[in-house]
Amino acid sequence: MTAPLALTIGDPAGVGPELAAAAWALRDSEGLPPFFVVGSARVVEEAARRRGISALVCTVKAPDEVAECFDGALPVLDLADLRYTPGEPDDAGASLALNALATATGLVRSGAASALVTGPIAKSRLARVGFDHPGQTEFVAQACGVTAENAVMMLAGPSLKVVPITVHVALRLVPDMLTAELIRTRAAITAAALTRDYGLTAPRLAVAGLNPHAGEDGRMGHEDTQVVAPAVALLRDAGINAFGPLPPDTMFHAEARESYDVAICMYHDQALIPMKALDFDAGVNVTLGLPIIRTSPDHGTAFAIAGTGKARVGPTIAALRMAGECAARRASA
Amino acid sequence: MTAPLALTIGDPAGVGPELAAAAWALRDSEGLPPFFVVGSARVVEEAARRRGISALVCTVKAPDEVAECFDGALPVLDLADLRYTPGEPDDAGASLALNALATATGLVRSGAASALVTGPIAKSRLARVGFDHPGQTEFVAQACGVTAENAVMMLAGPSLKVVPITVHVALRLVPDMLTAELIRTRAAITAAALTRDYGLTAPRLAVAGLNPHAGEDGRMGHEDTQVVAPAVALLRDAGINAFGPLPPDTMFHAEARESYDVAICMYHDQALIPMKALDFDAGVNVTLGLPIIRTSPDHGTAFAIAGTGKARVGPTIAALRMAGECAARRASA
Repeated sequence: MTAPLALTIGDPAGVGPELAAAAWALRDSEGLPPFFVVGSARVVEEAARRRGISALVCTVKAPDEVAECFDGALPVLDLADLRYTPGEPDDAGASLALNALATATGLVRSGAASALVTGPIAKSRLARVGFDHPGQTEFVAQACGVTAENAVMMLAGPSLKVVPITVHVALRLVPDMLTAELIRTRAAITAAALTRDYGLTAPRLAVAGLNPHAGEDGRMGHEDTQVVAPAVALLRDAGINAFGPLPPDTMFHAEARESYDVAICMYHDQALIPMKALDFDAGVNVTLGLPIIRTSPDHGTAFAIAGTGKARVGPTIAALRMAGECAARRASA
Repeated sequence: MTAPLALTIGDPAGVGPELAAAAWALRDSEGLPPFFVVGSARVVEEAARRRGISALVCTVKAPDEVAECFDGALPVLDLADLRYTPGEPDDAGASLALNALATATGLVRSGAASALVTGPIAKSRLARVGFDHPGQTEFVAQACGVTAENAVMMLAGPSLKVVPITVHVALRLVPDMLTAELIRTRAAITAAALTRDYGLTAPRLAVAGLNPHAGEDGRMGHEDTQVVAPAVALLRDAGINAFGPLPPDTMFHAEARESYDVAICMYHDQALIPMKALDFDAGVNVTLGLPIIRTSPDHGTAFAIAGTGKARVGPTIAALRMAGECAARRASA
């Protein structure tokens, strides 16, 4: 039997707690594997009640207690008996979010849980309680002994998987940040993960160009011929089925998408614009290159709508489902 | 009665001639308004035959002869009795393409034709026969007495309309090309055209940011606060319903698209990636800011597949239909 998934509560004042309860309520119709929340039983109970979900909460002391109670109640590994107000983050909540992340990562590292699914946090709040990483991904990577450079973000939806080679940087800085080695490294990590966790024996990587029309032989920028093309050549030399650089605007329509398993993109919006245009409510943020499986719903804390019941559960369900699928694949490997 | 549409043949060795015939063959099922080809009767006849279309061609001397023969045959304003080979462009073909463009533009300027729909040309071929414009758009703009800066490209599909403020330039050059005045001018031209030709009395303009998350208050680039936001303020001061800068990755999903009529984008791929992901085969390239209506199918000459019958007629039909709709709106204004 595969171990359960560990879902962190995220910031208790955000939408994480209510979405955990909402996902559990749909466990049967959505076919979700057993999971448990790492956080606070009181917070989850209150969030469920506010959302009008009749979710019973069962407190577990360890992941091996999850299976027996998951059918009838939402298992919570209870770290703090916290009072909170939706939409009003405070330091106690940030501490819980950080504690939950560290605890859940440890449980997955140990094998007691099969995958890590992280709820949304507010980085600026966590920084106030001693969190000195740019985001959860970097924290998890370090906890796993992986450098942040080798932790690769993939956004995966039903229509499209994308990997942005550069992520949260000003567009102006992108051209000079791109190197053939950076592209090669991240694309190779992607290819290995698609084989290990997604069952693709020879994943097809479509590598986007940087410039319009992939530069048209240098008429609109030289990065495509001088940086992207050499990276593709390095990948092919390594036996990876990569091709490109492709004109970015014509690689995301339905027929084009059939020719590849993942699009390797040069910058944030080149990747996220098509992903969210096509799969807005079902995108999963996956961290590749770690020894563990880690996914998260692709949205933030949404403090403004926390407690109102408006937050959509689709991304949380998609993140849990994908984590479960990857875990099952590793377990059967 | 609205005057017919003028469709230029484009490069005779490209897919323009066969697509003209294919569109005509579908005139009834697609509900297309009367149009005529400006080019060569022989070329169109041969292209139709190669594509297996039983299209009769009728030669017209002037647009006012089009209406009476359009039902039974494809009207062609015959400029050259040309022999050609699909996929093998030559100077005679380029001369015909240029002559067709100039003639058709004149007919629309005079009012004898109601709108200009341009078939695909090969700019490098046309340059050999004296064409000194970057593309057809600039040629048409000059013929209409409009500076190229004030001729604004819009890509329009059933799901989305987009206007890229900068177009065919290396991504590296985009941030420094953007000015509040450039954005304001092109967005204002767009708003006016949407009112005149698309019947939107108060068009809603969603203005994209340049950087990821629209810069997050300067944490990822300063252009959004220093250039894009001031442009939006100028537009609003002028009574235009513009809003932004919006995070580019979350403005193109179905629900977001309902909040605006056109997305004003900062660079080529920010506009064309979502447009082509959503409406690949139905995108129409429209030139706004001209005294005449001008559309074109959003693809090139496709020499490699010319004569094989593989070229899709969808974009040509969409370009003809949109030109007809805009012309009808002007005629009834």
